[in-house]
Amino acid sequence: MLEQLKEEVFQANLELPKQGLIKYTWGNVSGIDREQGLFVIKPSGVSYDNMKASDMVVCDLQGNVVEGKLNPSSDTPTHAVLYQRFSEIGGIVHTHSTWATAWAQSGLDVPAMGTTHADTFYGTVPCARFLTQEEIDRGYEAETGELIAETFKEREIDPLEVPGVLLHGHGPFTWGKTPSSAVMNAVVLDEVCKTNFVARQLNSYAEELPQRVLDKHYLRKHGKDAYYGQN
Amino acid sequence: MLEQLKEEVFQANLELPKQGLIKYTWGNVSGIDREQGLFVIKPSGVSYDNMKASDMVVCDLQGNVVEGKLNPSSDTPTHAVLYQRFSEIGGIVHTHSTWATAWAQSGLDVPAMGTTHADTFYGTVPCARFLTQEEIDRGYEAETGELIAETFKEREIDPLEVPGVLLHGHGPFTWGKTPSSAVMNAVVLDEVCKTNFVARQLNSYAEELPQRVLDKHYLRKHGKDAYYGQN
Amino acid sequence: MLEQLKEEVFQANLELPKQGLIKYTWGNVSGIDREQGLFVIKPSGVSYDNMKASDMVVCDLQGNVVEGKLNPSSDTPTHAVLYQRFSEIGGIVHTHSTWATAWAQSGLDVPAMGTTHADTFYGTVPCARFLTQEEIDRGYEAETGELIAETFKEREIDPLEVPGVLLHGHGPFTWGKTPSSAVMNAVVLDEVCKTNFVARQLNSYAEELPQRVLDKHYLRKHGKDAYYGQN
Amino acid sequence: MLEQLKEEVFQANLELPKQGLIKYTWGNVSGIDREQGLFVIKPSGVSYDNMKASDMVVCDLQGNVVEGKLNPSSDTPTHAVLYQRFSEIGGIVHTHSTWATAWAQSGLDVPAMGTTHADTFYGTVPCARFLTQEEIDRGYEAETGELIAETFKEREIDPLEVPGVLLHGHGPFTWGKTPSSAVMNAVVLDEVCKTNFVARQLNSYAEELPQRVLDKHYLRKHGKDAYYGQN
Repeated sequence: MLEQLKEEVFQANLELPKQGLIKYTWGNVSGIDREQGLFVIKPSGVSYDNMKASDMVVCDLQGNVVEGKLNPSSDTPTHAVLYQRFSEIGGIVHTHSTWATAWAQSGLDVPAMGTTHADTFYGTVPCARFLTQEEIDRGYEAETGELIAETFKEREIDPLEVPGVLLHGHGPFTWGKTPSSAVMNAVVLDEVCKTNFVARQLNSYAEELPQRVLDKHYLRKHGKDAYYGQN
Repeated sequence: MLEQLKEEVFQANLELPKQGLIKYTWGNVSGIDREQGLFVIKPSGVSYDNMKASDMVVCDLQGNVVEGKLNPSSDTPTHAVLYQRFSEIGGIVHTHSTWATAWAQSGLDVPAMGTTHADTFYGTVPCARFLTQEEIDRGYEAETGELIAETFKEREIDPLEVPGVLLHGHGPFTWGKTPSSAVMNAVVLDEVCKTNFVARQLNSYAEELPQRVLDKHYLRKHGKDAYYGQN
Repeated sequence: MLEQLKEEVFQANLELPKQGLIKYTWGNVSGIDREQGLFVIKPSGVSYDNMKASDMVVCDLQGNVVEGKLNPSSDTPTHAVLYQRFSEIGGIVHTHSTWATAWAQSGLDVPAMGTTHADTFYGTVPCARFLTQEEIDRGYEAETGELIAETFKEREIDPLEVPGVLLHGHGPFTWGKTPSSAVMNAVVLDEVCKTNFVARQLNSYAEELPQRVLDKHYLRKHGKDAYYGQN
Repeated sequence: MLEQLKEEVFQANLELPKQGLIKYTWGNVSGIDREQGLFVIKPSGVSYDNMKASDMVVCDLQGNVVEGKLNPSSDTPTHAVLYQRFSEIGGIVHTHSTWATAWAQSGLDVPAMGTTHADTFYGTVPCARFLTQEEIDRGYEAETGELIAETFKEREIDPLEVPGVLLHGHGPFTWGKTPSSAVMNAVVLDEVCKTNFVARQLNSYAEELPQRVLDKHYLRKHGKDAYYGQN
């Protein structure tokens, strides 16, 4: 079942330690087949050294296991809800990468302070609030997904234009058209958190990027007038 | 004697440089056989490049060498006391890893500011005070162990729920059910010190994790209702 | 065409990830043949893993492609203008390296605080302002080159003595007599931004290097009385 | 001539990039044969990739080349003076390692804030002042050596007990009984500067190590009552 997607999700998971985003098993990547309404995700707590493509678990959009011998990532319900709420995304990544996690612990949004940010995120990356006791009781992981969707709706952010979020006190979720682009967005978000941290320490009055520069950089890589790359 | 434990302790020691926790020989891991009341520890000041499993030293709970041609780690009496005072632990790690050591030099406790912390440590990781001259004269290394045990007792912390400590001006000790889990706890503590440092620099008013989130994350990985991983 | 220069530019591009200056494809190096008035540059958005020397693109000084199957870097017009304005340089590098980018986001110039700086940059490395809307409309990349040239002219800085610049909110450009020396200057600028950051955090009153030490270090490596190295 | 010492100095030089202390050729190690009154040092500006043991240059204590086809390190006169003034040292290292260089740029001494420091340096590592114009004119490199010796004499520091120094706005020099121990001291000094930096940022009131802990840690590794290691 979904052998090609399993391979793709497996390779995207291997990219996490290679890019320095995770230690041990502190991360997970999934990818979805929209036609079948099924997504493939890393198993829970399995060492990356021993993991095989065939260990990937297939789930439906309610987060139920459809195929696989291993338990899926404990964050599976978050992925399921995000695939439901954000209908155009194809892959999701969660890590505890150092700089994005540190920023998440600060409880602050990540402003667009540089073009590295603008090349990928079209504006501020929001930091979602802590879950309430009621939400935790109802189901921590699924409610995390609902909170992310709620945050983007309330703040009128398009999840394709800003393909990531921080969870206060926790860490980042990123997404993309594919599992591998979701991983790249995770790399960018971590790097942006690092450079913004240093910039602010150097100069607490450091400005955000002017809207005109944000527009220019985002739009030269995304949308109908893009002219970056080979396409 | 204890060949399997020697291999396990040897491998856990090799994990220290691999995880970036130590340079040269600045660290040591031990593991205990509770039935025999003997523990195995790295020899003192031996290069990791040349070390073999058979170089591991066997000691009794008074810290006396029972088997081995080499001197055990100079921190052996600390390990011996910790095995006596914390009767359920199976492995101990000491390093001078950068971020945990820096935090230890600040003299501050490590508050639970994120879920990376909560996944492993059920609350604040304490920073134990400097030893007094009297304690140093009585035996620096053994008294370090006594101080750690005293700190956990006075502050009513369960050493299995908070499997690590900082020593003011020195660095971290961590422990676990096994030598390898003690190493993983050392990795987590170092990472937590790094992310907390950055979070506090970004926002000096950054909050600690609410108790409800701390509970949720710790208890989904530990105890009878845990649902993380494959068990 | 220009096979040797293509190889040189290709190798200099490979040096960027090797030196930790870039992730993915976030950088570009070019080199010029002054006699033919043509320069060679990395193609846009091509993975470093698959890139070959023959993928390098040949452009004229107006930034038009003269030879090559792939699109040149989207920053090509910046390179073209710099080769026009700075007639003695032979290679140009652009990266989003962490520390230089963070400094660029702070909007501050990089003062000469240490001899690592003085060995390569004879004084302050300027931070150029944001482009105006009018400049962006006229052509973002070419105007970036004009802005750099304007900055050096207005501030009366010799581009051979200070072979690099920061662009506010963006990142560094560096140059040199050859593509590989331009890469080395990019490494130095990133390192200098890191050490200056730490020095200022440690001591906000930290002094700039006295002129006499700046002179000594720069001049023992550059110019007619240099005595560093094997020449 | 001195083939064994050349090999030892060569290996110690290779250790610099391996330990992350240098990039390119920004460092040098030397070692002395006290009986012959000759020292061996790295050639100037030679790439570490191509360097061979036979490229090492032999100099006398006035810094004159006695054997070797290549120019010795431009810092050779500093090494020569240090060997003259500090009669018991056997090896010297100079780097621009990130954290020690940043600290040197702050112009501050490095206080003993942790036991990593105390295991190697018996007290504060001094930061020597900028050279005067007169000193630079007299001979920058030799006067740097004189300044280091003067700093230790005026402040009554034993160079064997504190085997390193920072030069304001420049970087560290360390030394030891052998070239390889001088490299290890360079690693320790860089690490100590990093951990102290973080500790001070976390807590600007962070205390220095009490004298009793400094004594204990230094003396358990050094001197007649040492009990660390296998001797």
